[in-house]
Amino acid sequence: MTQKTWGGRFSEATDKRVEAFTESISYDHRLYRQDIQASQAHTRMLAAVGLLSQQEAEQIVTALEEIGQDIAAGRMPWQIELEDIHTHIERALIARLGDLGRKLHTARSRNDQVVTDVKLWVREAIDQIDSRLEDLQRAFVRFAEREEGVILPGYTHLQRAQPVLASHYALAYVEKWQRDRDRLAEARRRLNVLPLGAAALAGTSLPIDRDMVRRELGFAELAANSMDVSSDRDFVLDYVYALAVLAVHLSGWAEEWIIWSTTEFSFLELPDAFCTGSSIMPHKKNPDVLELIRGRSARVIAALQQLFVLLKGLPLAYNRDLQEDKIALFTAHDTVNACLEVAIPLVEGSRLRRDSITARLEDGFLDATTLMEGLVEMGVPLRAAHEAVGRLVQECEQRRCRLAELPEEVFQHLLPQHLDDSGRLRSRLGTAAALAAFRSHGSTAPAEVKKQLQLWKQRLRLDPAQH
Amino acid sequence: MTQKTWGGRFSEATDKRVEAFTESISYDHRLYRQDIQASQAHTRMLAAVGLLSQQEAEQIVTALEEIGQDIAAGRMPWQIELEDIHTHIERALIARLGDLGRKLHTARSRNDQVVTDVKLWVREAIDQIDSRLEDLQRAFVRFAEREEGVILPGYTHLQRAQPVLASHYALAYVEKWQRDRDRLAEARRRLNVLPLGAAALAGTSLPIDRDMVRRELGFAELAANSMDVSSDRDFVLDYVYALAVLAVHLSGWAEEWIIWSTTEFSFLELPDAFCTGSSIMPHKKNPDVLELIRGRSARVIAALQQLFVLLKGLPLAYNRDLQEDKIALFTAHDTVNACLEVAIPLVEGSRLRRDSITARLEDGFLDATTLMEGLVEMGVPLRAAHEAVGRLVQECEQRRCRLAELPEEVFQHLLPQHLDDSGRLRSRLGTAAALAAFRSHGSTAPAEVKKQLQLWKQRLRLDPAQH
Amino acid sequence: MTQKTWGGRFSEATDKRVEAFTESISYDHRLYRQDIQASQAHTRMLAAVGLLSQQEAEQIVTALEEIGQDIAAGRMPWQIELEDIHTHIERALIARLGDLGRKLHTARSRNDQVVTDVKLWVREAIDQIDSRLEDLQRAFVRFAEREEGVILPGYTHLQRAQPVLASHYALAYVEKWQRDRDRLAEARRRLNVLPLGAAALAGTSLPIDRDMVRRELGFAELAANSMDVSSDRDFVLDYVYALAVLAVHLSGWAEEWIIWSTTEFSFLELPDAFCTGSSIMPHKKNPDVLELIRGRSARVIAALQQLFVLLKGLPLAYNRDLQEDKIALFTAHDTVNACLEVAIPLVEGSRLRRDSITARLEDGFLDATTLMEGLVEMGVPLRAAHEAVGRLVQECEQRRCRLAELPEEVFQHLLPQHLDDSGRLRSRLGTAAALAAFRSHGSTAPAEVKKQLQLWKQRLRLDPAQH
Amino acid sequence: MTQKTWGGRFSEATDKRVEAFTESISYDHRLYRQDIQASQAHTRMLAAVGLLSQQEAEQIVTALEEIGQDIAAGRMPWQIELEDIHTHIERALIARLGDLGRKLHTARSRNDQVVTDVKLWVREAIDQIDSRLEDLQRAFVRFAEREEGVILPGYTHLQRAQPVLASHYALAYVEKWQRDRDRLAEARRRLNVLPLGAAALAGTSLPIDRDMVRRELGFAELAANSMDVSSDRDFVLDYVYALAVLAVHLSGWAEEWIIWSTTEFSFLELPDAFCTGSSIMPHKKNPDVLELIRGRSARVIAALQQLFVLLKGLPLAYNRDLQEDKIALFTAHDTVNACLEVAIPLVEGSRLRRDSITARLEDGFLDATTLMEGLVEMGVPLRAAHEAVGRLVQECEQRRCRLAELPEEVFQHLLPQHLDDSGRLRSRLGTAAALAAFRSHGSTAPAEVKKQLQLWKQRLRLDPAQH
Repeated sequence: MTQKTWGGRFSEATDKRVEAFTESISYDHRLYRQDIQASQAHTRMLAAVGLLSQQEAEQIVTALEEIGQDIAAGRMPWQIELEDIHTHIERALIARLGDLGRKLHTARSRNDQVVTDVKLWVREAIDQIDSRLEDLQRAFVRFAEREEGVILPGYTHLQRAQPVLASHYALAYVEKWQRDRDRLAEARRRLNVLPLGAAALAGTSLPIDRDMVRRELGFAELAANSMDVSSDRDFVLDYVYALAVLAVHLSGWAEEWIIWSTTEFSFLELPDAFCTGSSIMPHKKNPDVLELIRGRSARVIAALQQLFVLLKGLPLAYNRDLQEDKIALFTAHDTVNACLEVAIPLVEGSRLRRDSITARLEDGFLDATTLMEGLVEMGVPLRAAHEAVGRLVQECEQRRCRLAELPEEVFQHLLPQHLDDSGRLRSRLGTAAALAAFRSHGSTAPAEVKKQLQLWKQRLRLDPAQH
Repeated sequence: MTQKTWGGRFSEATDKRVEAFTESISYDHRLYRQDIQASQAHTRMLAAVGLLSQQEAEQIVTALEEIGQDIAAGRMPWQIELEDIHTHIERALIARLGDLGRKLHTARSRNDQVVTDVKLWVREAIDQIDSRLEDLQRAFVRFAEREEGVILPGYTHLQRAQPVLASHYALAYVEKWQRDRDRLAEARRRLNVLPLGAAALAGTSLPIDRDMVRRELGFAELAANSMDVSSDRDFVLDYVYALAVLAVHLSGWAEEWIIWSTTEFSFLELPDAFCTGSSIMPHKKNPDVLELIRGRSARVIAALQQLFVLLKGLPLAYNRDLQEDKIALFTAHDTVNACLEVAIPLVEGSRLRRDSITARLEDGFLDATTLMEGLVEMGVPLRAAHEAVGRLVQECEQRRCRLAELPEEVFQHLLPQHLDDSGRLRSRLGTAAALAAFRSHGSTAPAEVKKQLQLWKQRLRLDPAQH
Repeated sequence: MTQKTWGGRFSEATDKRVEAFTESISYDHRLYRQDIQASQAHTRMLAAVGLLSQQEAEQIVTALEEIGQDIAAGRMPWQIELEDIHTHIERALIARLGDLGRKLHTARSRNDQVVTDVKLWVREAIDQIDSRLEDLQRAFVRFAEREEGVILPGYTHLQRAQPVLASHYALAYVEKWQRDRDRLAEARRRLNVLPLGAAALAGTSLPIDRDMVRRELGFAELAANSMDVSSDRDFVLDYVYALAVLAVHLSGWAEEWIIWSTTEFSFLELPDAFCTGSSIMPHKKNPDVLELIRGRSARVIAALQQLFVLLKGLPLAYNRDLQEDKIALFTAHDTVNACLEVAIPLVEGSRLRRDSITARLEDGFLDATTLMEGLVEMGVPLRAAHEAVGRLVQECEQRRCRLAELPEEVFQHLLPQHLDDSGRLRSRLGTAAALAAFRSHGSTAPAEVKKQLQLWKQRLRLDPAQH
Repeated sequence: MTQKTWGGRFSEATDKRVEAFTESISYDHRLYRQDIQASQAHTRMLAAVGLLSQQEAEQIVTALEEIGQDIAAGRMPWQIELEDIHTHIERALIARLGDLGRKLHTARSRNDQVVTDVKLWVREAIDQIDSRLEDLQRAFVRFAEREEGVILPGYTHLQRAQPVLASHYALAYVEKWQRDRDRLAEARRRLNVLPLGAAALAGTSLPIDRDMVRRELGFAELAANSMDVSSDRDFVLDYVYALAVLAVHLSGWAEEWIIWSTTEFSFLELPDAFCTGSSIMPHKKNPDVLELIRGRSARVIAALQQLFVLLKGLPLAYNRDLQEDKIALFTAHDTVNACLEVAIPLVEGSRLRRDSITARLEDGFLDATTLMEGLVEMGVPLRAAHEAVGRLVQECEQRRCRLAELPEEVFQHLLPQHLDDSGRLRSRLGTAAALAAFRSHGSTAPAEVKKQLQLWKQRLRLDPAQH
């Protein structure tokens, strides 16, 4: 008898090259726990509806448990002629139980079996990434606390724009990670629909009880259409998409900290343990971890594209192309998971170089916009105030001075109207004063930032005593 | 005075080539309604907090209204030296109101203004696509009703697998469109957070009331971090991703119907009005609309990729690169919108060619699996039953006959155990009998399909009288 | 002393997680032969210029040879704390030769070393794929010979268009594979420029002789700018691009043969050894290999995208992100290589099902265009002829007959002018006659096809006796 | 009579929505010159083989010329019911010449006509981009000349690595642009094969002379297989790929100059005319052009991806999906063309800020590697020298000094062996000395750079008098 789960109608053995080409065991062995879990639930259901005796079911469930232990202990040799994890486990079951093992696959197909296993796997994966993201949020919140009071230049177009609190900066990322978590939660909710029972594509004539399996496996609903199940990989797309957005967020942050770690910026001290050196240049301390986080976003984005290209133009229902979904899925998950694993301690271990930051904090006219807003508050139309301050900046550039250093007469001369008292305006000059002037909701105003910081500490259950 | 919204500090005029290179008016003019709506809400708020007088605010609101009418009527000439829609509208306001117009931009930046406009636009776009998707669902449900009772071969690997009801087939797509709608709803929920008030990246020192603007523009929440707002394009990603998945669903369906329209399949009659001919081959009737729906999925997938590539590696906060997001956004939306617009009547106008389908319905052993399940119900282990039926099929292929046509002795001989009564098994043979045997939840069993059809008719408010 | 190739300036050991995150040994061990080859050439050059003694060089070359044998024999344990293949080999050298081993890295950096190794690897990879492509061409040419004389319906829009010879069809793919080979040859030519000697990014102050290394490693030219070398991955892009186009060609062919293998088309008999079955449906014979070839094109296309995303926005010179290039490179190569490996015997083993093809060859008006061209030759303007034949086809559809079966009076009536002798026109009707009428260069005209077939047999050195 | 080029067999008019959905005139009108050129060549050939009289041909050629002038002058109204540029021109011809116009399409199909037109268009596009690239090379060479002698820090991992000449830096990009030009030249060579005469997919029964058309249109070869022609879009892929690589090169350069333009780096002064300001922050001078060049690389990369997704899984021969190729093609070309147009003057107008560069040139241990190489030349094994210099750097960091500033005893103490004369080593310290020490081919050694600069000036015909 053939080793395959099929073969009765075939008169020629599968070509060895075809076995090597079509196998998935080299990567889908990762699904073994989920496969066993789903098979056990399926077995109990088969017994409940009378397709197995209670005793048969118990034997199968126990044997599956043992097979799972064997696999966990590395005692299961993978064989490419056994194609995939599902066949390996079924063959091991038959090896233990004989004909009884041959009954496990009753009323199911690999089509619905695989999707069930993968959904179980993705559900766990989502929970893992979500938990890491929460830790990453905590690391950024702790950064925000640690660097409280530090003023940074804020950038647009990578040009110095306005002053921001380091805490405000850090919390911007906490918001991004939160949207990533929301996206994961939605992906999880949408996938949580049981496929098992759809069989190959049309359901089955056997009297199964899908709802019992659903309850046991913790799915929220039953998939309502078997052809949809057989062809659907939306849940893989949704998860990999969420990972891709997360990877892009990570890439932007990594880019920023790479720039901050240059000699020129000198904003950040990365922990030595998270940097590497050069084989030729003995003085180098390179932000390799950040570079790889940035570069690996490409893997995740590409994994999503792989899925789209894969799925494009496939008719109903199952097509073998779909086997490839796991390649993209595992790549995207592993990559992001690894990035998060190193990102968290890297953030915890990094320190702002306050001296360097402060040394040049008055460069770049970070106070210009607040000055302009001061004029607006005095009644100058916005566009006119904008022009006036623009001219002041031009004057400063020629004189190579700061706004606060402009002589009073120049100041007066270039303003759009005579000022009896330029003092109020001038009191807004300098980066610290400019920062202190902010007040809008969600702004870098110190009070606003403090409020947000408190909110996040509560939300993330960050006990003050904890760090 | 320069026409730009900036320029005070510049000593050299912008190069003409740069104006042509950096302009966005050629495509962002589509945001004019949203820009006016947001500016009006902003104006009312400025008045409420005293940065404008009530009268000033009314003048601005009225003038903006008129400008909107001008644009709607095609009376606004677009000029690339005015960069974008925001500048055009502000310049038009200044042309009408002089210095007062110069006050509109108080306490906001183009950074938060653009994001607000685009969010308003995307929110409407989502609603439009959702409504079209609902119509598409209705078209498929009506197809399911129209073709009730028709049996189709169901395929896996594009090989005949098991019989399915045409209605079951059609409802599989209704499930897919529903997930697409869910995805859109989530994208909508996540974007519904007001950015305005974040200003350039740090907020403002002016005493604005963001919550008032939020209420007027119908956002659910306030964005909590100005630096996040300035750098965030997640909402564009989320929408374009939802469109890309939808486009892939459309591409698979289109592929299927292209195949169904071949001479060889002859399953489907497409309406003449939705096909085109050939410039050289006078007999051709080509499914061009379906081919273009399939092909245009590439545009949407590529638009998503464009966004990912665009966003990869950008540090905080706003970078000019982000201007490019609208190219991808508009392309993806327009493409999917156009595809849906033609897909709906195409589905409504297409008919299954029942004669052709029936003529070959007994080909391809569509009853083999049900036969096997019959053996299982008689106590034969699944794998043994599978082998046995496999051998029956092989025998049929050699004899060029169907399962129902096999002589009784062959039937008996190849079964795994002696049957006193093969009649019960043989009664399952033939496609119609095989179909009738299904019973699991979500399967193609006639009763199950009828139930699902009723559910969808209710859900989509499809009144029986309506069609 | 640290195990790293760097580390003197570091006060903290590398974090274990960072070692796991930054290692590349798990995949770049594939470069070991190339690394040894390049290091041996480098060593000989160091001796030639006096940076090593002749005896030192010989010791190193010999030790490297032995290390290579160890690796080939699986005797080298990979350790992630040794980062990459380059460090492994260098450490093994030091273990054997002590201080002398420490001299190997003189006047080079991992930056130029890696690029040299990868270029050597890609050069071999190109040769391997080119050779497989030549075999694939041969398989298609043999198909063309084997099926000589068989007439197929040719399709546009997947609708029957005009008759074509099966040989003409097969040779169309031979042309595509040839362009793929041309693309590979160009990629090879462009990469064949020696990077070694560029060191980290600026060259070296040591008196090296790059041209000697170039000659030994068989490169055509020396890279002229060290900063370019340090940042350049064009050659990886070029190769992966060539693979992606090839993969897309394969995907189209696979799609076509999947369709041809349906019950409905029944054009093709795939060898059993290249198909697989179903775990639930005992009658299935699925074209899995073709489906996976189609689906795996997504991996290759995604690998190219990964590279583009990776490289986007990187400043000069080397950045650690570049390490990721090998992931994409190896994936693309392995995938295409495996696809070709199975595609070749699959083509060799497949047969057209001539009976099925012939049985419906007169369906679909394959002769309509030739009829129209007959009218044109009789002086009817093309567009008028097109209309006339269009009406004939419409008439046939109503009568459910073929063009050749139309009554003479209908024929005469619908033609644009009175025909004294419609016989000449009618002699062109029927698929065989239509096919025979072709005559343009590059067309499916039998004589043209024969000529092309001969050309390809010569070009591919296909001896008639060989098969 | 229908306006379409087909329609005889259709009993129902095309749905208006379908016309809007399937039209391509809104973008393929750009092909009008090529369409006319190819039609004129086709016409002359038809006359030469007797399918038209000489006089008919002359009338057609003349009328086509006039139609071309009408289009150039904007006198041709585009109508979506006329689908595409080919139909517009043919209808205009019939409007002028009546029945004679109906003869133009003899012996060709839109399938081969479109490909011919697009190939002609791409050939011109390649020439245009190549010419711009040459100008860009010249701009970089002039930069190299203008900044001759300026020393820059060279970076790896964006960390200061070794000193490089500004000219060396600039020439690295000249190498990259050259590879881009090589890629374009190859794409051009491969596309230069005439498709016309392949007709729909099978060739024609009419006695055409393809070689005559080939000569007139300047193609190097005749396409040898009509089915290949009908399905082939490799030439679009090749061109868009070349553009995508170029776009990625541009993105890296743009990124670098954006970083160089920060307050922190202050390496570069961009011309005011190539920067823009902020609507809210009056002091901003933003490198928008560079940001958009970086960001627009995403469009080009996505265009390539669009093509791959489009082509994936399409069977032979022409499918309507292929119409979409022009969207990607035009987008990619226009984007890159526009980027080059602004990049050239931007490079010409930019200046290194030598003071700022020099002020920090001794930071970052740019001389460490040369010091190490000095030890190697004295016989210290590379790895030992590397360690020793690493320790020197560590010492400097603790003392916050430069290598040249280390006390002699520390210097001696940390070196791997006693030095009688550390003077020779110390003479290599300092950035200028380190730079002067380079000597390898292709390195930043002043003599090497001068040589390369001369070579490029000759190659690009840059006359010293010219600038």
